[in-house]
Amino acid sequence: MEKAKIDWPHMHPINGVRIGAARAGIKKPGRLDVLIFEIAKGASVAGVFTQNAFCAAPVMVAKEHLSLGDIRYLLINSGNANACTGERGLIDARATCTAVGDLGGVSAPQVLPFSTGVIGEFLPVDKIIGAVPEAINALDKDGWESAARAIMTTDTCPKGASLQFEYQGKTLSVSGVAKGAGMIRPNMATMLSFVATDAVVAQSVLDTILNIAVNRSFNRITIDGDTSTNDACILIASGEAELPPIEQAEGELFEKLCDAVVVVMQQLARAIVRDGEGATKFVSIEVCGGFDSDECLKIGYSVAHSPLVKTALYASDANWGRIVAAIGYAGIRNIDVTKIKVWLDDVLVVDRGARYAGYSDDAGTAVVKRPDFTIKIELGRGRASETVWTSDLSHDYVTINAEYRT
Amino acid sequence: MEKAKIDWPHMHPINGVRIGAARAGIKKPGRLDVLIFEIAKGASVAGVFTQNAFCAAPVMVAKEHLSLGDIRYLLINSGNANACTGERGLIDARATCTAVGDLGGVSAPQVLPFSTGVIGEFLPVDKIIGAVPEAINALDKDGWESAARAIMTTDTCPKGASLQFEYQGKTLSVSGVAKGAGMIRPNMATMLSFVATDAVVAQSVLDTILNIAVNRSFNRITIDGDTSTNDACILIASGEAELPPIEQAEGELFEKLCDAVVVVMQQLARAIVRDGEGATKFVSIEVCGGFDSDECLKIGYSVAHSPLVKTALYASDANWGRIVAAIGYAGIRNIDVTKIKVWLDDVLVVDRGARYAGYSDDAGTAVVKRPDFTIKIELGRGRASETVWTSDLSHDYVTINAEYRT
Repeated sequence: MEKAKIDWPHMHPINGVRIGAARAGIKKPGRLDVLIFEIAKGASVAGVFTQNAFCAAPVMVAKEHLSLGDIRYLLINSGNANACTGERGLIDARATCTAVGDLGGVSAPQVLPFSTGVIGEFLPVDKIIGAVPEAINALDKDGWESAARAIMTTDTCPKGASLQFEYQGKTLSVSGVAKGAGMIRPNMATMLSFVATDAVVAQSVLDTILNIAVNRSFNRITIDGDTSTNDACILIASGEAELPPIEQAEGELFEKLCDAVVVVMQQLARAIVRDGEGATKFVSIEVCGGFDSDECLKIGYSVAHSPLVKTALYASDANWGRIVAAIGYAGIRNIDVTKIKVWLDDVLVVDRGARYAGYSDDAGTAVVKRPDFTIKIELGRGRASETVWTSDLSHDYVTINAEYRT
Repeated sequence: MEKAKIDWPHMHPINGVRIGAARAGIKKPGRLDVLIFEIAKGASVAGVFTQNAFCAAPVMVAKEHLSLGDIRYLLINSGNANACTGERGLIDARATCTAVGDLGGVSAPQVLPFSTGVIGEFLPVDKIIGAVPEAINALDKDGWESAARAIMTTDTCPKGASLQFEYQGKTLSVSGVAKGAGMIRPNMATMLSFVATDAVVAQSVLDTILNIAVNRSFNRITIDGDTSTNDACILIASGEAELPPIEQAEGELFEKLCDAVVVVMQQLARAIVRDGEGATKFVSIEVCGGFDSDECLKIGYSVAHSPLVKTALYASDANWGRIVAAIGYAGIRNIDVTKIKVWLDDVLVVDRGARYAGYSDDAGTAVVKRPDFTIKIELGRGRASETVWTSDLSHDYVTINAEYRT
């Protein structure tokens, strides 16, 4: 992966959503680190949050505010996670919401706070509040790229995705940004994503769309529960499109919108993996022929998380023995290894649980030298299938994470 | 850790056990890679094996032979794991047992085979059989150090432990060797250990002692099921001591022997962690105040396995935020984070789920700079406690594992 080449997409503006970023000097001076989303009155906002028992103060406050509805602003800072900061962390997060509410003419509970960065240090509230006027002055419907930049931590490039689709002669848009990095799992590098559409969507339907899309995107690069203290994904439906509201989780418009949100979130999720700390490869792990989805995911993650598999991929070593060992310790009951097949792209490597007679190391090596390839695992015991995405484990991963705080 | 300094202990010979090693040139010419244990008639032999679904051919054969009893030889090779080798792997493993049996005057099922090394390549049976006479000629009760050397793969030093204890005026001995390396988990670098005593022990009692000792040693550096294709631990009671047999899992002699085997296996388990691939630190993770042992272990392993914690430890960075995040995603239900305390050795870092007011980064850094320290986690919800041992994640880990096959 050529990290230097940032292929920043054209981002369709979303009527009813304006974005402004500012420099508060939270961790480093001179970089965008405070971000505000302004959301039109009448919009719907849905959110999913980390399941980590140590969820950060802003997550607690955001959940509380979201449950009250009528959200008008998002306030995001990078450089400090406001996590493991106890009671003071909650007070600090609320103080920043109050500051945005005061300037925006809304109440504090109409503002959702988000933070990403170092854990265990108190939020520099004064710096953030000091930068809020600059961010509000910068509000613009074309602020998506600065949004993507302002939320970056160890990310090496901003991540955005955007598309449009037609319905009854009208054009609808979906745009979003994300930040991630980390070795994806344990995905303790916070994942944040903010996605918006101009569609008109009832709250309960928006919740459904968000759950479907997260399960088919971000939840395929991390595991439920294995999340950082600050993870969050927000979906805004501004309601500015001139179309009737989507009131039910069915019908053509619902399906089209749901598909569009899935595509945008999958593009963002893939971008997070591609930019994994030190990553040099993008690897899809496709597990099929499983008894159920759960066992396919267990095996997919077992392979995806094995440090021995990941270091072999980094070395472009088609070390399939490490792949089968990771399948073997995934904890699936009564698995019959003599039915298992493994392919590297279209090269059959393992047949009936052992090295395929026609396999050559050269053919396998040619695949794993590619920057983007698939490990396909056939279990031969059912019809379920799942795909997870991961990266390799390189020297740079160790360097980045050994030096992050210094 | 100074890897260069090998502190090879004095190994007490075990009457009734002789050991011989030889050079078969399996992976590299000139190094010891074939090993034979000769066991006196009437000895008891107990074994525990990998739970990996892809268990290697020698593991299947060893389990089968062990169930028949009257074991007289162990045959171990390094350099090739004979794993994922299908039907031919079983034939090959049996052929090596036959060769040893023929020279030793016993039947093939009285020989247990063990292999460690590269997965997925067929065993070089001719080379191994060719080296068996040399190994048998070398049989000696003082062969423990060459035993430890012959089973090494990515290990940087041989691992041995030995002690004696008194009972009713008689001296009893326990001696053992092990090999490990790997980042401990997923512990796909095979762990092998062979321990012997001259005590007289009934088979069922020996099985009990082995289970107790493994659970308090090797199972604290790896998880049930998360094992390599070839892991095995063997305990031999030669029965040569002039004492009555231990027929029950109780009484003073049973307790003394059990304690001695635990100590030897703990020393070997710690030596494996200290020699973890690229490891520069030895870290004990002590979890106390848990509701039950299971949740203490889950949290201990969650911290021990976090790549972000391990890279921070490598950098001597007291990044306690990563420790609490790993506690938080361990998947413990209803955990109250406001009761959690974390210490680095005797330095209180986290109190009531947040940074302890009296904590200073300098105090934390001073601890994690040590080559050997303890992360202590108090959950404040019960009386259970568990300790696991782990190492850090360094650049050398990536180098070793990215280059192992080349």
